Parts: sequence; C-alpha cells; structure tokens
Amino acid sequence: MLPRGMRDFPPEIAILRKDVFSRLEKVFQRFGFDPLETPIVELWETLKGKYGAEAENKLIYTFKDRWGGKELALRYDLTVPLARFISENPGIPLPFKRYAIGRVYRHERPQRGRYREFYQCDVDIVGAPGPEADAEILSVIGTVMKEFKLPGYTIKVNDRRLLSGIFEKKLGIKRNLLAVYRAIDKVEKLGWGAVREELKQLVPASKVSRIKDVIDIRGGPEDVMERVENEFGDVPEVKEALEHLGEILKLAGKINVKLDLSMVRGLDYYTGPIFETVVKSPRIGSITGGGRYDGLLGSYGVNLPATGTTIGVERLIDAGIELKLFRKAKSVTQAYVVDLGVKEYAWRVAATLRGEGVNTRIDLLGRNWKKQAEEAKKLGVRFLVIVGKKESSAGKVTVVDRETDRKLLVSLVEAAQRIKSLSRA
Amino acid sequence: MLPRGMRDFPPEIAILRKDVFSRLEKVFQRFGFDPLETPIVELWETLKGKYGAEAENKLIYTFKDRWGGKELALRYDLTVPLARFISENPGIPLPFKRYAIGRVYRHERPQRGRYREFYQCDVDIVGAPGPEADAEILSVIGTVMKEFKLPGYTIKVNDRRLLSGIFEKKLGIKRNLLAVYRAIDKVEKLGWGAVREELKQLVPASKVSRIKDVIDIRGGPEDVMERVENEFGDVPEVKEALEHLGEILKLAGKINVKLDLSMVRGLDYYTGPIFETVVKSPRIGSITGGGRYDGLLGSYGVNLPATGTTIGVERLIDAGIELKLFRKAKSVTQAYVVDLGVKEYAWRVAATLRGEGVNTRIDLLGRNWKKQAEEAKKLGVRFLVIVGKKESSAGKVTVVDRETDRKLLVSLVEAAQRIKSLSRA
Repeated sequence: MLPRGMRDFPPEIAILRKDVFSRLEKVFQRFGFDPLETPIVELWETLKGKYGAEAENKLIYTFKDRWGGKELALRYDLTVPLARFISENPGIPLPFKRYAIGRVYRHERPQRGRYREFYQCDVDIVGAPGPEADAEILSVIGTVMKEFKLPGYTIKVNDRRLLSGIFEKKLGIKRNLLAVYRAIDKVEKLGWGAVREELKQLVPASKVSRIKDVIDIRGGPEDVMERVENEFGDVPEVKEALEHLGEILKLAGKINVKLDLSMVRGLDYYTGPIFETVVKSPRIGSITGGGRYDGLLGSYGVNLPATGTTIGVERLIDAGIELKLFRKAKSVTQAYVVDLGVKEYAWRVAATLRGEGVNTRIDLLGRNWKKQAEEAKKLGVRFLVIVGKKESSAGKVTVVDRETDRKLLVSLVEAAQRIKSLSRA
Repeated sequence: MLPRGMRDFPPEIAILRKDVFSRLEKVFQRFGFDPLETPIVELWETLKGKYGAEAENKLIYTFKDRWGGKELALRYDLTVPLARFISENPGIPLPFKRYAIGRVYRHERPQRGRYREFYQCDVDIVGAPGPEADAEILSVIGTVMKEFKLPGYTIKVNDRRLLSGIFEKKLGIKRNLLAVYRAIDKVEKLGWGAVREELKQLVPASKVSRIKDVIDIRGGPEDVMERVENEFGDVPEVKEALEHLGEILKLAGKINVKLDLSMVRGLDYYTGPIFETVVKSPRIGSITGGGRYDGLLGSYGVNLPATGTTIGVERLIDAGIELKLFRKAKSVTQAYVVDLGVKEYAWRVAATLRGEGVNTRIDLLGRNWKKQAEEAKKLGVRFLVIVGKKESSAGKVTVVDRETDRKLLVSLVEAAQRIKSLSRA
C-alpha cells in the first residue's frame, strides 16, 4: 500500500510523463537555461518563515531524524531551494538561468488532481533586473504553450506596480493592500458579488466601485496600456510599470498576451510584472504562474533581483491526456523478435537491432510464436521481426508492420532503418 | 545550509549527471525495458523486515507525519518498491521488464563518495525463471560498460546453486552457510588470512582449506565450467547451475565475463546466477551488482521469479569524472548572441536560432559587447553570434567559433545548421 496522496507511475504513464518532461527541458535549454538539482530533504530552518502560517502548520512535512539530528523537512517548492542555493554559492555567474523539474511535498487533502507528492517545474532568472529577463520568461511560456499545442491559451499579464500605484496613489488605499489583492484574485472563481462583500470589510464602501473599474481593465496590450497611461500615467510607479511592460512585450515576440488588471497572483512576494496562463479547455484554472520577485532573495541575505515562472506540469499532463494531445504507449519497445525455432539466430538479430538503435524485445519464456505475437500485441509493439529457418539461412528477417499489415523480407540493417524511421513518424 | 550528507548539483554537475542518466536509459530502452516510477515516501510497514536489523535500526529514515497518520519512511532502495508495485498490480503483463533511476536515502556516516541522498539505477525482469532473462541482464551490463568505455571491465559471474551444491553436498557444510558466504565475500577486501580466521569460527578447521580450494576457482567461463563439471558435476544442483550458466553465456553474446567462485554477493536473497562488475581503474569496488532472486517477491505474496542488476550510478559518475570520460560543460548553451547595438534584430536572431534548435543565450543586462563575450566565455559557450548594423541590414550574422577562431558571415539558417552540426561533434 502507498501513503495517501502518493502515486506509482506504471510504464504507460511514466513513459508519457518522461516525454513531457523532456520536451519541457528541451524548450528551457533552447533558451539557455541550465539544470539545477537540490535535495528532496531540506533543513526545516531553511523552509521556516517562507510560506506563511497555513503552509507551516498544515502542509509542510517536517520530521526529526531519529538519530537526534536537526529538524528536517521535505521540500515544499523549488523556489526556496533556489534561493538557498544562490545564497550559498556567491561565486555563481550572473545572471543565473536555471530550470528544475522535480518532486515536492504538500500534506493536502488528496482529491482529483491533487496529490501529496507531485512534480513542479520552474524556470527562473536571478540577477537581471530589467525587462529583458521578464521577456525571456514570457517567451518560454509562449514556446511551451506552442510546443504542447494547448488550444486557446492566453497569457494574462499584469504588474504589481500598476496595482499599487493606482490603488495607493489614485484610490488612496494604504491599509490592507495585500488583503485587497487576495480578494481581487478570487473574482474569476467566486464572481464580483462575493469579492465586493470581502472588499467592503477592507476598504471604505466608496472605493469598492472604483476598484471594480480598475480590475475591469483588460484586453489587448496596446489598448490597455493606452487606457492606463491616460487615466493613471501621472503616477511614477504606473509610468515605470508601463515602460517595463512595453519593453517586455516588444522583446518577447509573437505570443498570445492579454493585460488584465484583475490578475494579481496570490503570493505576496511579487514586485513587478506577473504572468499567468489560462487555456480555453479543459477547465483547469491557470497552467502557469509567475512573475518578478526582487525582494525574496533578500531574506537569504542576497540582494538579487529575480523573475521566473512555474509550469504546472501536473495540470499540463492531466489536460494533455484529457485533450488526447499525447500518444500513449504501453512500452518503449519498437520491435519484437518472434522466434520460430532458431533461438541463437533470433538472439543475434535482437542484439543487432539493439545495436542499430531499435528498442527490441525477445521472448524470455520459451513460448510458441503465437504467444510471442500476443505479448507484442499486448505491449502495443508495432513491428514484429519474424525469424525462422528461411530467414536464418538467408541472414534476413521478415518485418511485419502491425499498423499497415505490410510484410517484408529484408536485411537486418534495412529492418533497423525501416523500424526507426517509421517509429519516429 | 543542507542536511548532512545531502548535495546540490549545480549546472556543471547536473548537466553531466543528466547526460549519464539519459545514456543509461537509452541502453535500457534498447533492451525493451520500460520505466516505472514509485514515490520517495513509502509506508514504514512496506520496508519493515526487508533489509535486516542494521538497516532498520541505523540506516532507514522513518518518521511519523505530524498529523497522526501512519509511520512513513524514505525509500531505501528501488527493489522493495518494485516488489510492492508488482504485488499491487497483479494484472501487469509478464515478464515485466522495468528500469528505474531515482533517489534513495540512507543514514550513513557521510564520507567521500558516500551520501545520505543518492541515486540508484536498477534493471529487473519479473516473471521469467529461465536463463534468457539472466542473459538479458548480463547483456545490459556489458552494453553499459561499453557505452561508457570503462577501461578493463570484468563481469564476475557465479551461481548460488554452485556454492550451495558444493558446500552442502560435497563439503558437508550445513550450518552457517549464509555466514560462510558473507565471510568469503570479503576475501578481495581483507585477504585470505582474515577470512580464514572468520571461517574457523564457522566450520570445522578441516573444511577451511577445502573452502579455499573452491573459491580459488576462477577464470574464463569454459575452463571454469569444465573444471567444476569434472570435480562437482555429480551434484544435481551444480549440474543445473552449470547448464543455466552455459545457456546464459551463449545468449548474452560477446562480453567480458569471468566465472569466479569467490564472488558471492552479500545479500541473502539471491537464489541463482549472480553478477558483479569490476573495473581495473579507478579502485572503486564493484560498479554493478545483481542476480536472480526468485524468493524475494514471495514476501509480498506474489510468487514470481525475478532477476536484475543495480548499476552503481554514483560510482560510475565518480569514476567517469576521475577518468575524464565525460565532457564537462558549465552550460547547455551553444550560441551566445552578441549585440553590437541592434537590440530588436539581436532578439529576433536569438528567437530564430532557438526555433531552429540551437540553445541560445542573449545579454539580459544591457552590457557592452566585451562584457557579453566575457559572459559567453565564462559559461564555456562555443559560438558567438555577432550582430551589428552590417549584419542587421544584410539579414545575416557573424558566427565566431571560439574553438577554431573561425569567423563567418552567414544567413541565420546556415548559422543554426553550422552550430548544431559542430556542437554534436
């Protein structure tokens, strides 16, 4: 039995997940991001005070090792370990561009799509304060969306400085600003009615409708920027954010972006541009989330700007499966050598195919050819490589493509080439 | 700070390790092994009673989650999780061929080359009792050794039935057999003198020298098999083991195998052929270890034969680094776009190269060209892609190969092709 909320990934799922991870890695590497790996187990003191009370009291796995060592914890995300790493490696060349795909642990109530052990996937740039770094993050998000052909994706963009500039300087809201953000963040999920009631507890009633006007601003980047410029451009913070956003969008190239002043992201540590990606279907909430967090590393004693995004890999995988975007395979095996009674030759054939780069299985149970073909079928192996006396004496093999039922007597090298090129298609 | 015995892998090491893992995976997949992933966290009851007293009392990380749930443990190896998985998935097609590369946890005293969090790498076949499955395991080991070009490797092969047949039936040793194995296992490390003293405590003195005669039998498979056949072939178990080994070696193809009757492998659960790989240099002990364990799955209520091997990835990586078998890279980046003041063009160039499959970085700090080239050098990036007014107006780029100092003004597509083909070399 497994601990609650933890999963095995049998081959059929593990193959698919590995493929998703490797496609993500390829995108990140294209942008020159390098891998960083940190342990699953961290000292509790490293995580403490970083995630707020709820996480600390309810969600983080902590334990004392039984040899009286220090209090330990299972990592809760990949951002705090990055911050710890940076603080401990002051000589690392900046900007530091890293990606990480790995397991994290949260003691959530298990339910559909929510697990206690799951993968996170992060891309971050440390040490670059300007719009160039944010543009790269935005570009990575767009490239990932295109890579996986997620239908109707939109990257919502906003900037914490727009919000704070408008709310503080124009609407005169000084207290409860983070609480106001958190309330606004729920407007998509709960609707304006509920959010309005929450806001009434936080700000004078007269300001609630003005907040509504602000967060209703959304749409194409140029329109929104022009409108914000006209209405609030006299606030220096707003001006700065608009310039920063303008430069980001110019550099990021063609991606499907909307500016949306109601998108605030829950986390308190964002300081500049923020990003979130939604897709039309299936309904899975946001599939990426991130932004600039120039203050966070300060709590580790390194005063460095940073920006990045999480790609919600678990959601991406769930969505991709639901939308049938991934090809499912029960096995990596491409060819199955069916032995009609020429064992030594059959094993030489299998060895040769493997040497030529074909993923090959051969019977391990001394079964008759029917049973062998059954195994191949059960594993979804496309090519049967049949060898009997005829093939053995000719030094050839008969290749059967189970998808087209075509049958060919060919040399081993030809067989390998055929199987490889057709498997790639 | 990190917990003792745990490591970060900065890009330079993470890149190398990922490359090793992916080369191993490729070998396993060639043989039609499929990936299986299991959680890091298991129930303690799953691990309990499987590894002996020392592991249970001193080495396994166990903890109770603080919400009063069941006692948990960090996985100690990848074999017990495999056994648990098999017992919980009775419908899985057999033989089940799986590989796994993942982190395991042992509360060892940290020292050079020994960590509390490290990777294991296992290949196993469940449900195939015959020599074919063992032959595949042996073949995988040989292919891995060739893949990594480890100098002077030898796969030592033995069979537990040879040992038990000879010791029980010929030498009349019935008691303390496992203790005798464990003593013999140390002969390489401690020398015969120390082992002799230990054996004297376990068996009558008269039998110690006869044990010595047996474990001195080693060498080329044919010689050893003939000698064992002649001396002990009348014992049915020995006969059976010899036939099994003969068939394995015939099927496994050309690999560097020695039969060695002193190689017994420490673990108690082996029941048939056992394998261990050593290399001439560096002196790192064995680099693979495994064998047939037909009884182990029984303790999970599934009576299935199994065989497999561990590839000691951590040792493989350490050895490969020491022997300079791996190319070290500080970054995956292949090209660095140096912008001489044509920012928008430079970013389009970077986007195009990335789209063409080149891992590309571009300046994120608004630096002059010298600083940009310095960053490229610091990261070990081979190609500079220089763009200024001349390149911009011609729609071209100047590619500098830092290895050869060659400089070429070419189109973007040409640049990408050049960089890709030279980077592969």
